[in-house]
Amino acid sequence: MELTQLSCEEFLSQLASKAPAPGGGGAAALVGAAGAALGNMVGSLTTGKKKYAAVEADIQALNARAEALRQRLEALVQADAEAFAPLAAAYGLPKETPEQQAQKAAVLAEALDGACAVPLDIMDACCEGIRLAADYAAKGSVLAVSDAGCAALFCKAALQAAGLDEKAARMLAEYVPLADEVYQSVASRLRV
Amino acid sequence: MELTQLSCEEFLSQLASKAPAPGGGGAAALVGAAGAALGNMVGSLTTGKKKYAAVEADIQALNARAEALRQRLEALVQADAEAFAPLAAAYGLPKETPEQQAQKAAVLAEALDGACAVPLDIMDACCEGIRLAADYAAKGSVLAVSDAGCAALFCKAALQAAGLDEKAARMLAEYVPLADEVYQSVASRLRV
Repeated sequence: MELTQLSCEEFLSQLASKAPAPGGGGAAALVGAAGAALGNMVGSLTTGKKKYAAVEADIQALNARAEALRQRLEALVQADAEAFAPLAAAYGLPKETPEQQAQKAAVLAEALDGACAVPLDIMDACCEGIRLAADYAAKGSVLAVSDAGCAALFCKAALQAAGLDEKAARMLAEYVPLADEVYQSVASRLRV
Repeated sequence: MELTQLSCEEFLSQLASKAPAPGGGGAAALVGAAGAALGNMVGSLTTGKKKYAAVEADIQALNARAEALRQRLEALVQADAEAFAPLAAAYGLPKETPEQQAQKAAVLAEALDGACAVPLDIMDACCEGIRLAADYAAKGSVLAVSDAGCAALFCKAALQAAGLDEKAARMLAEYVPLADEVYQSVASRLRV
């Protein structure tokens, strides 16, 4: 059973436990998916409205990207959980002879590469979520603008959370300020 | 059926749609609950370890608070969805006579109070989540310190997201810097 097929309550209960998955990476992917979904909600509340006819094609294109992004992040919840099984297996390999030591080092290096690729992929997906939130805040219904702000906040938190597992200064440096900008513009429009 | 009993996939799919619930407030409560759960995970990975025997009682007390907080935030996902039904009903009341107008105004004011109480309660709960993340980062297993950082990030994003629905400058002013401090201390320890 895939982790995202668990009920929200069961997912959170497993997250709170010492079970190896879901962990911080899987939680980050889920929070990023919530950001993608909230952006998509802005689009769902905008499409088909006469007032926004001029941006209808743009909104539909954004909605398609948001839905694909949500599915990608849901898949990453599972990928994060599965990436650590080969790592655990590699740690358990024998290292008594020089041949065994060399083989263990090679297997371990490959498993580590695999395990590290997932957080980077989560970060990349969250950057797309922040770009989408910026577009939804600019073009979506003003009645749902606060949700575009929430979408930016969730994707930013997920980006930074995945970044705690992996050095990725470039993504953080570029996209955290963009998320802040979306949040600030929405907050100032709402005079919060 | 309560919203948190939906699978994660179904919850996110409804979030992405134009259905009135879940919306930004319910998503914020879920993200806050993920923060509470991640803090609790740090505690679950710390309790019972010989190396952390000196803080065992503290960790157990933190774990009890984190579990109660997660349940509180799960209940707030549902409360946010239910708070808008009386508001929709109040908007539908007739206002043809002066008596009807007065009654509608009174019912509307009460429904608005109820609807606004939930985001403030979500914000209050997220402040508790940030306090817990700070304690887990200070006292929990160093092997799980990145998860305490993630917990702070998620509770901060949920606090700010709920704050977009409601003016609450005091909570934002006090707890966003604390969440930032937890994140920075964790990030610097991990040299991200």
